[in-house]
Amino acid sequence: MTRLGHAARAAAAQLALAGSEAKNKALRQMASALRADRHKLLAANAKDMSAARQRDLSAASLDRLTLDEKRIEAMAKGLEDIADLPDPVGRELAAWQRPNGLQIARVAVPLGVIGIIFESRPNVTADAGGLCLKSGNAAILRGGSESAQSSAAILDCLQKGLREAGLPESAIQRLPTTDRAAVGIMLTMTDSIDLIIPRGGRGLIERVAAESRIPVLKHLDGICHTYVDSAADMEKARRIVVNAKMRRTGICGATETLLVDRRRSDLLPVFIGDLIAAGCEVRGDAETQQADARVKAATDLDWDTEYLDAIISVRVVDGVREAVAHINRHGSHHTEAIITEDQAAADLFLREVDAGIVIHNSSTQFADGGEFGMGAEIGISTGKLHARGPVGAEQLTSYKYIVRGNGQVRP
Amino acid sequence: MTRLGHAARAAAAQLALAGSEAKNKALRQMASALRADRHKLLAANAKDMSAARQRDLSAASLDRLTLDEKRIEAMAKGLEDIADLPDPVGRELAAWQRPNGLQIARVAVPLGVIGIIFESRPNVTADAGGLCLKSGNAAILRGGSESAQSSAAILDCLQKGLREAGLPESAIQRLPTTDRAAVGIMLTMTDSIDLIIPRGGRGLIERVAAESRIPVLKHLDGICHTYVDSAADMEKARRIVVNAKMRRTGICGATETLLVDRRRSDLLPVFIGDLIAAGCEVRGDAETQQADARVKAATDLDWDTEYLDAIISVRVVDGVREAVAHINRHGSHHTEAIITEDQAAADLFLREVDAGIVIHNSSTQFADGGEFGMGAEIGISTGKLHARGPVGAEQLTSYKYIVRGNGQVRP
Repeated sequence: MTRLGHAARAAAAQLALAGSEAKNKALRQMASALRADRHKLLAANAKDMSAARQRDLSAASLDRLTLDEKRIEAMAKGLEDIADLPDPVGRELAAWQRPNGLQIARVAVPLGVIGIIFESRPNVTADAGGLCLKSGNAAILRGGSESAQSSAAILDCLQKGLREAGLPESAIQRLPTTDRAAVGIMLTMTDSIDLIIPRGGRGLIERVAAESRIPVLKHLDGICHTYVDSAADMEKARRIVVNAKMRRTGICGATETLLVDRRRSDLLPVFIGDLIAAGCEVRGDAETQQADARVKAATDLDWDTEYLDAIISVRVVDGVREAVAHINRHGSHHTEAIITEDQAAADLFLREVDAGIVIHNSSTQFADGGEFGMGAEIGISTGKLHARGPVGAEQLTSYKYIVRGNGQVRP
Repeated sequence: MTRLGHAARAAAAQLALAGSEAKNKALRQMASALRADRHKLLAANAKDMSAARQRDLSAASLDRLTLDEKRIEAMAKGLEDIADLPDPVGRELAAWQRPNGLQIARVAVPLGVIGIIFESRPNVTADAGGLCLKSGNAAILRGGSESAQSSAAILDCLQKGLREAGLPESAIQRLPTTDRAAVGIMLTMTDSIDLIIPRGGRGLIERVAAESRIPVLKHLDGICHTYVDSAADMEKARRIVVNAKMRRTGICGATETLLVDRRRSDLLPVFIGDLIAAGCEVRGDAETQQADARVKAATDLDWDTEYLDAIISVRVVDGVREAVAHINRHGSHHTEAIITEDQAAADLFLREVDAGIVIHNSSTQFADGGEFGMGAEIGISTGKLHARGPVGAEQLTSYKYIVRGNGQVRP
């Protein structure tokens, strides 16, 4: 583990000075290698899948673990998309001159070494490795044991790409073991790792946050709300509510709770009908239940639950202020939306809701780095430090101040 | 402690929405209160001083603890200067439109609640409290027991200012006890505190970093170097070297090691003479010792030492690459300077040295938020996450994404 850490640190020093061309060449060669080696990847994945079936993994876990030609192509394309992004390193973030003539510039630099701890999805190896490389950071990956064979085969392709671009192989490494204790050791390697990014369920993220001696970029729950204001346009509201909940129910930006202004409670039967027709279970407060007999009673727990499933909780509120209060109390500071034609209500909501992303008249499912135009993302940060919201290549950088003088001394 | 945390959280929610006018009014009223109550402050400080003398504190500690009319005026002026800064909250950091018409803006918001742990300087109460208020954050302060009376008197003035501006008093609070164990509890209050900033010596900062469950913005050593390149202008170099070391020896931006290119080792006697004439002890490698009999032998330890005193270590190196290698190995990533008229050497140094601040042809003593034009600073971050270099009001903010749509749903 120590040797791995030292190698990562040395690679990070080289990557920090690597040009955009070399990094992009490596990314494109990685994509080619994934395509060329797809039969090896499928064979490695078959071993993981057969072991997983013996261990009785859930259908959802098996799906996350599966690689097929389409998913391999998506990984390769993802790496090429990252190559096409502008280089986040070396950007001049600000520049000014002081009265004494000193010229000061704030310029983006890589963070150093990033540790990524993930569960079953083997494609995280390619996505996270690619984003770290683009941002000039070395990566140490630790995937779940269930995807060990697949991840190792993907890593072979990434390291082939690094070699072909003349970059150090140790720029992207895997922990040599999937032993659970190895994660514990990794989380104490403060000399070798600058940032830990956990990707997975709440259990993993809470364990990492509790144990880590290294700063952690957290991607916790997405308990997202859509609030339909009294001044909502009904057609927009119907379209957005169904999309926000049902487009994909398993992503963190899916709406989990619908809040409806009491002055528009006449719309409740419409929303409930749309949602049930789309296959959604509806749980509601007393007023919502009165609107449609098919609505089950929501309990206190429902307002604090991220279903990640075709279930929604619905509550009637007294206007935008009560909506904001409900969201700031029960939300997870992820993504929150208001549907209204009243600009003042929208402004109040956008200003007072404490969340990484606040949305007016659109779907919470847009909470995504790609949809934001940031290219690939490594997750959505629900913390406020360093990066909030979608974390793409830019968010994986720090900066340095470059000061140019002509002999100035400080009085 | 829990009640204090809840009060801070509630105050933070109010401060996040407070206008610039109210915050600036509070800052100016705080300054007035400090001036009006200066006799109370001096009386409180006299109690601290007399207790400190009985406890045999060092002369340097006693000096840090001392308040006098001049220092009280400096605190008041500091708060007024913070009031004059632009409001860091609400700044639009970026804005763009997506092909589907969604308008996205990244807008600065406060971090929440900031915990500040400091040692003997009572003025930290005013400086840190003022910066947190300006940036819309609530502050929980924990000063050393030796400054308890002085800090309490200063806090009274700050809370008076908050009241007069209609802002909650609990926006700035002190731990009710100076018990050492209270710091341990504070460092686990992850629900109530978003960021911990320790201000003090290495021992304090290392303890906080080791124990904290809350993210820490660290201000570690300043082992700063000035490198005199072969193409240095001699007069600039002489002026800068003496300033970088001797202007003030106790600040983190003071140069601790002088590196001189072997091709200009003829300048060594001049630098050594200047430094000794200014009252500096010079420790050097073999070549430096040959240049002047008054130079003591440097040991390996010297290259890794932050003297914070009138002592300098001097080493001869083979050109800019060896200087960069020495700095990246022995430096603390704080502030590093090159003196040269060779633009290529300067560019290589500025690019390859891994430090928060890199300087060409000027003094490392410029490492200061005020000198950078950022107004007051709460310290200089030597970490790379969230903020690097001087930490002013802007660096105490996070951001949120505001998305404005017109009915868009995600395909």
